[in-house]
Amino acid sequence: MNLQKAKDALSQFPRLELGTLPTPLHRMSHLQAKLDTSLPLYIKRDDLTGLGPGGNKVRNLEYLLGDMVKQGGDIVLASGKNQSNLCALTVSACCKAGLDCIIFHNDQPPLQQTGNQLLNHLSGAHLEYIGSVTDQEREEYVAQYAQRLQQQGRQPYIIKNGASTALGALGYVHAMVELCQQCQQQELTLRHLFVPGGNGGLAAGTIFGAALTQAPFHVHVITVEHEVPILKKILEDFLQEIVQLTGQLDGFDFDQVYTVHGEYRGQGWAKSTPECIQQIYDLARIEGIFVEQVYTSKTLYGMVDMVRKGLVDTNACYLHTGGFGALFSQF
Amino acid sequence: MNLQKAKDALSQFPRLELGTLPTPLHRMSHLQAKLDTSLPLYIKRDDLTGLGPGGNKVRNLEYLLGDMVKQGGDIVLASGKNQSNLCALTVSACCKAGLDCIIFHNDQPPLQQTGNQLLNHLSGAHLEYIGSVTDQEREEYVAQYAQRLQQQGRQPYIIKNGASTALGALGYVHAMVELCQQCQQQELTLRHLFVPGGNGGLAAGTIFGAALTQAPFHVHVITVEHEVPILKKILEDFLQEIVQLTGQLDGFDFDQVYTVHGEYRGQGWAKSTPECIQQIYDLARIEGIFVEQVYTSKTLYGMVDMVRKGLVDTNACYLHTGGFGALFSQF
Repeated sequence: MNLQKAKDALSQFPRLELGTLPTPLHRMSHLQAKLDTSLPLYIKRDDLTGLGPGGNKVRNLEYLLGDMVKQGGDIVLASGKNQSNLCALTVSACCKAGLDCIIFHNDQPPLQQTGNQLLNHLSGAHLEYIGSVTDQEREEYVAQYAQRLQQQGRQPYIIKNGASTALGALGYVHAMVELCQQCQQQELTLRHLFVPGGNGGLAAGTIFGAALTQAPFHVHVITVEHEVPILKKILEDFLQEIVQLTGQLDGFDFDQVYTVHGEYRGQGWAKSTPECIQQIYDLARIEGIFVEQVYTSKTLYGMVDMVRKGLVDTNACYLHTGGFGALFSQF
Repeated sequence: MNLQKAKDALSQFPRLELGTLPTPLHRMSHLQAKLDTSLPLYIKRDDLTGLGPGGNKVRNLEYLLGDMVKQGGDIVLASGKNQSNLCALTVSACCKAGLDCIIFHNDQPPLQQTGNQLLNHLSGAHLEYIGSVTDQEREEYVAQYAQRLQQQGRQPYIIKNGASTALGALGYVHAMVELCQQCQQQELTLRHLFVPGGNGGLAAGTIFGAALTQAPFHVHVITVEHEVPILKKILEDFLQEIVQLTGQLDGFDFDQVYTVHGEYRGQGWAKSTPECIQQIYDLARIEGIFVEQVYTSKTLYGMVDMVRKGLVDTNACYLHTGGFGALFSQF
C-alpha cells in the first residue's frame, strides 16, 4: 500500500468536514457462521457517517461543498426523487455548513411525508416538485433555475448527477485511504471489497482509490441500476475524469482492479428482487444491521452469493452505504 | 481522572460486544454560533452505537446479555410500548447474539408498522401484544410467561424496567470511561454533561461512572418523565444498588456529582413541549443531526436553555441517546 501518494493527491482539493469519520470497520462473524464458511467477512459502516440519516453521499459532499465554498457559491441546488438519499444528505450538509439550498424533486408532492421526506421537512428544506419528468428534463430545469438565480445576483452551485462527479468521487478516494489505514491498524489484509454501482460515482472513486493506494483488495461493483456494459462505460469515463482531475494514474489499467457484476440488479434501479428483500430480513436477523431495497441489499446479496458459490477466496468486506432513512418508506 | 479503578470494577462483569464503540465525540460549533456564546459545545454520539437503529440501550444490553449468557439463559424477554427503543434494540441485540427473544408490548397491535415497529418486523421479532395495561401489569404478565417457559424447560432471562437496572447501568459506567479517554485524546476538559432522566438507569450509570472515574464534569440530568423528587429518589436507590453490585464508592456523596433539572419535562413521558419540538427543527437545521420527541430533544433543550441563561460556564457536552427509529412514527 502507498497511502502518501493518495493523501498528497487529495490535499489539492478543499474538503469540508461533515461526517464522523472514520466510520467503523468490523467483523460479521454471525453472517460468516450462517454461510458456513471459514472466510472472514467484514463490513465498512458508511451508514454511520453521522450526518442526517448517514450514508455514503456525505463523503462526496465533503469535496463538493468544499469546492463550492472555495468558488464563492452561496446557494446549493440538488435534485432527485422524493426519497433520494443524496437530497436528504445535501439538506443536512447545507444545514450544518450554514449554506442555502434548494432541492428539486422529479416527483409529485407526497401525500404523506415518510422516510427521507420527513427528515427534509424537519430540516426546513426548500423543496420544489417538478413532476414526474426524466432525469435529463430535471437537470435542464435546474440549470434554468440556476440562471435565474444568477440574474438575481446569487452564486448557485449545482450538485449534478446525484453528487456522482469526478470531484464528488474523491470522497471515496478518501474513504479508501481511511479503509487501508484501518486495515493496517487491525492487521488485516482485505482481498475483496463489495460496493454498489448506481450512477457510478462511488464505484469510480473506490476503484481509483484502490488503485492509487495500491490496496490489496479487488473491487467488486454490484450494478443496481444499469446493465453491465453501460455501467462499465460510465466507470471508464469517470475514471478518466478522475485521472484528469487529480493528475494521477494516467495510462493505468484499471481493469485489473475491479469487476462489474450484473447478476444482482433485477430489473434495474429501485426494482427490488426477492433475493434482495430476503437479504434485508437476513442481515437484520443475523447481525442486527439494516439494509434497504435500492442499493445496499442488492450489493450485500452479491457478496453473499459469491461467497456461497466459492467465487471469493479470503477476507471479504461489504461497504454499507446507508439509506436507513429511506427504509422507512419501503415497507 | 482515575480510569483504572473503573476499568477494574467493570472487569468483574461479562460484557457482550454489541456496539460500534467508541461512539464519536465532536464539537457543535454551529449550535454554539447560533447561541452566540463563546462556550464550546460538544455532542457524544450514542445515537451511533451501530446496532439496529442505534441508541443508548445498546450499552445496557452489552452487560445484561453478557450476564444472561454467563447464567445460561436461553431466551430473552423484554417489554415496552410499541415504539420502545429498548424493545427494538433488544431485538437487534438478540439477533446479533443468536439468542431467542420475545417482546411484550403493553399496547394494541398497530394498524400500520411505522418506526421501530417496522424494524422489529424486518428483524423477525416474536411480538406479544398484551393490550393497554400498566407497566406493573405488564411486568407481572411477563413474569408469569417466564414461569411457563421454565416449566417447559427453557431458561428465560427477563430484561426488567427497560434495561434500567444496576447491571444495565454499568453500560454507562463503561461509557464514562470511554468519554474520559476521548477527552484525554482530544485534550479537552468537559465541565458539564447533559443526559436524559427517564426511569433512571442511564442517569445513574452516568453519575456513578463520573464519580468513579473522578471525571471533571458535573452531570445534569434532565428529567423527561417523573417530577424531580421522584426521579431523585429513583436515582438514589439506583446508585446504592450499583454501589452494592460493584463494591465501589460506599458512602460517597453523589449529590456533589449531579443535579436533576425539572423545568424541561412538560407534562411527563412522551408528552412533547413546544420547546422540545422546536429543538428537533433547530438541531436538524443547524447541525444536520436528528433528535426525537420523548428523550433527546427535551435534554438538548435543557442544555440550550441553561447555556442561554448563563447557568453553564464552560465546555458543555450533550449526550445524544438515539431514538432515530422512533422519530419516523412521531410526525
